[in-house]
Amino acid sequence: MSKATGGRFFEDFRIGQAIVHPTPRTVTAGDAALYQALYGGRFALFSSDEFARGLGLPAAPLDPLLVFHVVFGKTVPDISLNAVANLGYAEWRHLAPVYGGDTLSAVSEVIGLKENSNRMTGVVYVRTTGTNQRGEAVLSYVRWVMVRKRGAAHTAPEAVLPATAAAVAAADLVLPHELNFAGYDLALAGGQALFEDYAAGERIDHLDGMTVEETEAQMATRLYQNTARVHFNPFAREDGRRLVYGGVVMSTVRALTFNGLENAGLLLAVNAGRHVNPYFAGRTLFAWSEVLETADLGACGALRLRTIGTVDHPCIDCPSEGPQVVLDLDYWAAIPKRAS
Amino acid sequence: MSKATGGRFFEDFRIGQAIVHPTPRTVTAGDAALYQALYGGRFALFSSDEFARGLGLPAAPLDPLLVFHVVFGKTVPDISLNAVANLGYAEWRHLAPVYGGDTLSAVSEVIGLKENSNRMTGVVYVRTTGTNQRGEAVLSYVRWVMVRKRGAAHTAPEAVLPATAAAVAAADLVLPHELNFAGYDLALAGGQALFEDYAAGERIDHLDGMTVEETEAQMATRLYQNTARVHFNPFAREDGRRLVYGGVVMSTVRALTFNGLENAGLLLAVNAGRHVNPYFAGRTLFAWSEVLETADLGACGALRLRTIGTVDHPCIDCPSEGPQVVLDLDYWAAIPKRAS
Amino acid sequence: MSKATGGRFFEDFRIGQAIVHPTPRTVTAGDAALYQALYGGRFALFSSDEFARGLGLPAAPLDPLLVFHVVFGKTVPDISLNAVANLGYAEWRHLAPVYGGDTLSAVSEVIGLKENSNRMTGVVYVRTTGTNQRGEAVLSYVRWVMVRKRGAAHTAPEAVLPATAAAVAAADLVLPHELNFAGYDLALAGGQALFEDYAAGERIDHLDGMTVEETEAQMATRLYQNTARVHFNPFAREDGRRLVYGGVVMSTVRALTFNGLENAGLLLAVNAGRHVNPYFAGRTLFAWSEVLETADLGACGALRLRTIGTVDHPCIDCPSEGPQVVLDLDYWAAIPKRAS
Repeated sequence: MSKATGGRFFEDFRIGQAIVHPTPRTVTAGDAALYQALYGGRFALFSSDEFARGLGLPAAPLDPLLVFHVVFGKTVPDISLNAVANLGYAEWRHLAPVYGGDTLSAVSEVIGLKENSNRMTGVVYVRTTGTNQRGEAVLSYVRWVMVRKRGAAHTAPEAVLPATAAAVAAADLVLPHELNFAGYDLALAGGQALFEDYAAGERIDHLDGMTVEETEAQMATRLYQNTARVHFNPFAREDGRRLVYGGVVMSTVRALTFNGLENAGLLLAVNAGRHVNPYFAGRTLFAWSEVLETADLGACGALRLRTIGTVDHPCIDCPSEGPQVVLDLDYWAAIPKRAS
Repeated sequence: MSKATGGRFFEDFRIGQAIVHPTPRTVTAGDAALYQALYGGRFALFSSDEFARGLGLPAAPLDPLLVFHVVFGKTVPDISLNAVANLGYAEWRHLAPVYGGDTLSAVSEVIGLKENSNRMTGVVYVRTTGTNQRGEAVLSYVRWVMVRKRGAAHTAPEAVLPATAAAVAAADLVLPHELNFAGYDLALAGGQALFEDYAAGERIDHLDGMTVEETEAQMATRLYQNTARVHFNPFAREDGRRLVYGGVVMSTVRALTFNGLENAGLLLAVNAGRHVNPYFAGRTLFAWSEVLETADLGACGALRLRTIGTVDHPCIDCPSEGPQVVLDLDYWAAIPKRAS
Repeated sequence: MSKATGGRFFEDFRIGQAIVHPTPRTVTAGDAALYQALYGGRFALFSSDEFARGLGLPAAPLDPLLVFHVVFGKTVPDISLNAVANLGYAEWRHLAPVYGGDTLSAVSEVIGLKENSNRMTGVVYVRTTGTNQRGEAVLSYVRWVMVRKRGAAHTAPEAVLPATAAAVAAADLVLPHELNFAGYDLALAGGQALFEDYAAGERIDHLDGMTVEETEAQMATRLYQNTARVHFNPFAREDGRRLVYGGVVMSTVRALTFNGLENAGLLLAVNAGRHVNPYFAGRTLFAWSEVLETADLGACGALRLRTIGTVDHPCIDCPSEGPQVVLDLDYWAAIPKRAS
């Protein structure tokens, strides 16, 4: 009965350990269509090969969050099958666009370990790199997660806490090298507001609401080959409910931001992300954003945005705390400049 | 808080106004697979590249209704976000087949405006054209929709009512120019009845029933980038229910017609369409059809069909009115001739 | 009202009858993505073009069960629309890999007929062959199913019972001819256990649980163009419930076996399969397997496995009977050898 595995516990991680995650995945137009059907996004860059070619790219790239979910999914069986909580992200950067036909693989390095004082759990920090079939890194991020110990009696290694940046510096953002916003078509993109039109402190209620059903959450999570038990198996939670994968909330909320951020579709980096409250299927997500910072990258601008996702609560009052808040995401997105 | 838009109101439309709809969309084999999974159609022409090649086409075209939904979806944020009711269609013609890899765009021209006597709403008439990446029109239709006014006090323009044909004339139907039914394989198509076997007045109970779930309706509607609030956001309706996009009913009912119309898969035009009653998810759709007219197009025949969709009511009695009727569609479909 | 068909009854079958099933189907990356989203499989061979190329194949083949479902779906309108029960399978062999872009067709030959003593039903045996666009057989299986008679008064033909093998002999298993396990990457495949590590009698609890929702079952079944009424139309069953297509259970359970059979993804043949109890959506599937037999095929090994699927019952106790058991599948899967 020993061939099936139940995942690593805190004691199974070692500083410096490199974990090659199984099941490389060729992403295709089929994945892009499912992503479209699951979230309903409208950013032209990911929707139209023609639009993308007008910007110098060979085809419409996959939505960066789809790339993230596929890479993240690979890490779950190795890193977080026995996780109690997903604590945070840092230094999450997209390093190259991913296209239909590319094959994604992932490797994680253990960069931090710290037992909790209750001796029953510990925090594991990993730096995960997603690569394409040419071995080029397409995504890198640090994640930390609270993982169960096999038991209190087990001795834990000395605590190592990695230093991570509070936010990705604008200078560290990576634009797809072929991207050229010169031919950007505002009418097809669907919004008139460009880099110069946004200012730090500005708030946008994205107005629309989107309900996520259990099936949608499950199909998305399987698409990403994410095997976390709590998303599929009601026997894995005491309350017998299935928890929606936080990435589903992230993608749904991000799709909602189109209304007001039409030209800021290209996610470049995530500075920090917090699943403030669990989200269960059948409830309706809303979103609002605040511009935290703007940065001129030369070829285009970048907006540092804080987007809040709420549940069953339209965002006219821009809530940032409370039981109705499910997501608090701090990220950078590229946006064309008037000059470009 | 002003960058997100809530859509045009009646006062925002002007006769002659041309609206370029955002978010061009490359349709792919992924969309075709989702369409298959959502409706279960069995028309060989859309299912098999080999079958389509046998008829002179380069590959299986996308189902014309999928093309319609994608084009229609683009118009929603610009035309009908503040619609009260979708009133009708006319002069809906498919002008060229669409294949995986094609990119669809849409433009609408405002051709009619009429304020309602209550001064709270008005009817907007648009002619929408869908084009592919070569700028070729693939679809054209007139639609009219009742849209909210910003307020009763606003002055409305003088009423302009467009003249539309009561039905598309057989002479105006457009066949894919490469299509050649000479090699049509009846066994693979699944039905023996050809053009000569159908006569005006004939009725067909399509027998099968199909239930549509909330998730399916949502996934379809997101796939089409249709943002109408009532399909996703229960807060947008007083009864807190989500309304299923009428196009989902249309596609489901059309797929049901395979049983009895196996060789009439290629929709050429819609003369008129009415969503007789709202459809809510979880109920079972049935369908029956009447042959209204037949037309010899030379290279093939065409059937003018009236297909009625009902809910939770098998169609042995061919009902055309009453609360169980949800769809009343009058359309032309191509069908091979014995001679061809 | 006669053009729509209600399917064959027992009296409509004749020994030796060859039935060409309608609606050839081009399978694509879109189908593969949906299959991934519906079942969540992690076998590297079907997930990554690069991994498959490393084994000598031109791309990742479609999961053999997806091929089976598509072929099987074609037969339903012709064979089992009036079925009372799906009784069994034999001599089910996959004969060539299927890739995105291939077009599948199916033909069935009636090889057995036996009226039941109640005179209301009879058992129909067919041998079905699925072929690709080059006319190469990709799948062959015998299936028997209990079908309604038009009436007790109808005379039945003399009983003919086909001889079928109790199991597919190891010598009759067909490996994809280009397949070469020399470059097999264990880290990417996700498991260390190879042919030599499994022994007859060994049992594996696959640990994970997966819930299937009604929508998922419907979408899968439509994807396969399977028209059996009981899966979509609650009016077709006295209890008003929709029965999940048994193939959905099969694919879900097979995906669960990854945990413990990571290197045995390539299904070569099914010796026998039984849907022990009906499965209704919303319940959680679990699985365990027993190694029945091992066979050295030269280029690789093969495991003969018995996999049991259960519902709402984790498999720590390896149940093989009782109301919680829904699937009992006896099959062969290829697995690399240490030497290879």
